[in-house]
Amino acid sequence: MDTRENHQLQSEKLDQLPALLRETGIDCWLVWVRETVQSSDPVLPLILGADLVWPSALLFTADGERIAIVGTYDAAVVPAELYSRVIPYTEGIAGALRIELDRIAPRAIGINESRSDVAADGLTSGMKALLVDMLAPTPYASRLTSAERLVGGLRGRKSPFEQARIRDAVRITEQIFDELDAFLSVGQTEIEIQEFVHRRMSELGVGFAWQAASNPAVDAGPNKPFGHGGPSDNRTKRGHLLHFDFGVQSGGYSSDIQRMYYFGPPDEIPAEAKRAFETVRDAIQLAARALRPGVRGRDVDAVARGHVVECGYPPFAHALGHQIGRYAHDGGTLLGPAWERYGDSPNGLVEAGNVFTLELHVPTTGYGQVSLEEDVVVTGAGCESLSHPQRVLRCIAA
Amino acid sequence: MDTRENHQLQSEKLDQLPALLRETGIDCWLVWVRETVQSSDPVLPLILGADLVWPSALLFTADGERIAIVGTYDAAVVPAELYSRVIPYTEGIAGALRIELDRIAPRAIGINESRSDVAADGLTSGMKALLVDMLAPTPYASRLTSAERLVGGLRGRKSPFEQARIRDAVRITEQIFDELDAFLSVGQTEIEIQEFVHRRMSELGVGFAWQAASNPAVDAGPNKPFGHGGPSDNRTKRGHLLHFDFGVQSGGYSSDIQRMYYFGPPDEIPAEAKRAFETVRDAIQLAARALRPGVRGRDVDAVARGHVVECGYPPFAHALGHQIGRYAHDGGTLLGPAWERYGDSPNGLVEAGNVFTLELHVPTTGYGQVSLEEDVVVTGAGCESLSHPQRVLRCIAA
Repeated sequence: MDTRENHQLQSEKLDQLPALLRETGIDCWLVWVRETVQSSDPVLPLILGADLVWPSALLFTADGERIAIVGTYDAAVVPAELYSRVIPYTEGIAGALRIELDRIAPRAIGINESRSDVAADGLTSGMKALLVDMLAPTPYASRLTSAERLVGGLRGRKSPFEQARIRDAVRITEQIFDELDAFLSVGQTEIEIQEFVHRRMSELGVGFAWQAASNPAVDAGPNKPFGHGGPSDNRTKRGHLLHFDFGVQSGGYSSDIQRMYYFGPPDEIPAEAKRAFETVRDAIQLAARALRPGVRGRDVDAVARGHVVECGYPPFAHALGHQIGRYAHDGGTLLGPAWERYGDSPNGLVEAGNVFTLELHVPTTGYGQVSLEEDVVVTGAGCESLSHPQRVLRCIAA
Repeated sequence: MDTRENHQLQSEKLDQLPALLRETGIDCWLVWVRETVQSSDPVLPLILGADLVWPSALLFTADGERIAIVGTYDAAVVPAELYSRVIPYTEGIAGALRIELDRIAPRAIGINESRSDVAADGLTSGMKALLVDMLAPTPYASRLTSAERLVGGLRGRKSPFEQARIRDAVRITEQIFDELDAFLSVGQTEIEIQEFVHRRMSELGVGFAWQAASNPAVDAGPNKPFGHGGPSDNRTKRGHLLHFDFGVQSGGYSSDIQRMYYFGPPDEIPAEAKRAFETVRDAIQLAARALRPGVRGRDVDAVARGHVVECGYPPFAHALGHQIGRYAHDGGTLLGPAWERYGDSPNGLVEAGNVFTLELHVPTTGYGQVSLEEDVVVTGAGCESLSHPQRVLRCIAA
């Protein structure tokens, strides 16, 4: 993104803040970072398209104030059109920070600490300790509170700029899947297939939504551990399935789509593979019909999970859907079961503007896992699919 | 870096761990991360060349055990040649983590929390809270301690692989400075000059040691705020100075060098500019002679600072030197004054294998800031310059 595009994004996101501060009862949101090239807060690109070196405090109030207290050498990177005030310091930030907090006199100061949401957990533990030390002589140390809901809302309610970028990423991903229809044949290794996709990504000028080694994941046939590992020299084979999990990053935003291929004519698809495919496809569509603003994440997961189990399959060992945005796993409310590792994220409420994946798999005995993933945006009343949902197995002549 | 190079780096760094654990009195070092594509621990690339999705615990003991407890889908990305054991989990990590800690029975568990060192502060505050919750029923929650010195040593004692990469980065940076001798002329804007450097970096296949917008910083003449801001349409002018702050990233490692040019013949350099240049140059060389294993960072800073003040200039408003490595600001012991914003880092002891910048500036009244920066590696007895120290102003015919 160039600077102008960057500022459009940040301007849209910063405009969302006053309402989010009021909704979450936070009087002042404090983003507290240093050396962000090495250790950034995931929220920073939404509110400042630059890196900061010295300890820096970005303060936002429900009145719309946007204050940056930064080292003298960093002052020039804070855009004047986005921030109402830039306060530079040289030896230490504590004095200026205390003065600003005294002026704002917040009862609740939101900080980026979250057990459940990586995207709302950008404050490091040492920086938190430093902040508590600095505020020890003031009433404010005891007023620090998690800004998890605020950050979840800011990140999750995709602005027009963000939705357009995600649509671009989905479009390019689907274009490459269409090209794979022509490229694929029996006897190719997973590695060869991944190399084709990487070459096309490079030619189309897009990046990776997650690490290149497992993007796309390419799983040919039944003899493969399923997961975030990379492609192997497994070869595509007549009568086998082929699975992709693939996401690009375009203009700073991500897609995340899974597709299934079969090597052989449609009328030869084995009944077991066909039934598995249809179960996954239908579970995703049932979940899509349940996805709307105000529903709890775990309740959407339960719809898909229930269908899979009703059809006699084991429940899938992951969440039905995560938000996508700047990252393939963008944090915030999760469409997932109430498992320990998901923390509180499945209890969050779905909001308009959230972009989710809907994804799940079921096993087959002789053909490999059958897994699909669609990308959808939550609208006022329900959801709209950004990807073109896969209706049938894509068959490759063999 | 390809996978083989990656493993060479990680293998060298992991081999340093048992001694570091013993030196720092840590029985078990715990690196505790999740969704590292979005929010990584800066130490992760040194010990695992891959990203992890679910909450993950990497455990290291003084006996040389290297254990990875990771989500089932992440297990395949942990290299078997680097880790002695990979323990996968599905619903939650707490059970497996407690079992391993009970077996190791550490009295001190190092975690990546540091007030002073960004590189040793990769644990987020939410992840720390989650860890304390998980360990609440055990004796281990109260045994958590900062691994700041361990991480500082691991990161700071550059291995042969790392030193070779930094030398490459320095060599390419100096090559581009040599090319600038021929490229520069009067009447060019700072922006044009930066564009030339960016084009050459792209052609040479190197990346940026810090953000492209201010890399290189290009400061032509006296009318410029000095710092991390970008180039402007200031033009080079006969009789003016030109300043660069420039660092590339090559093979994952960084350089960081400042150079000064003068537009005009050497015998016309104004006495004030010449005296400022020589003061900076000599202060750096005096500091280099004081830099050796066992000296405190702040004491090296004091040597250069003292010389500048003795020469009648104001003390520079930053540290004399920071470590470089994967980042231009690589954390650990700092050659800096005991200012609030530097925390405890100036009190650290210099160690063999540390790679530092030596940099400072003094003002002139009519020619702009005079600022230089060299890169040096600490050896057994002193230090060796990796850059070729600038001895005289580089003069451009004007």
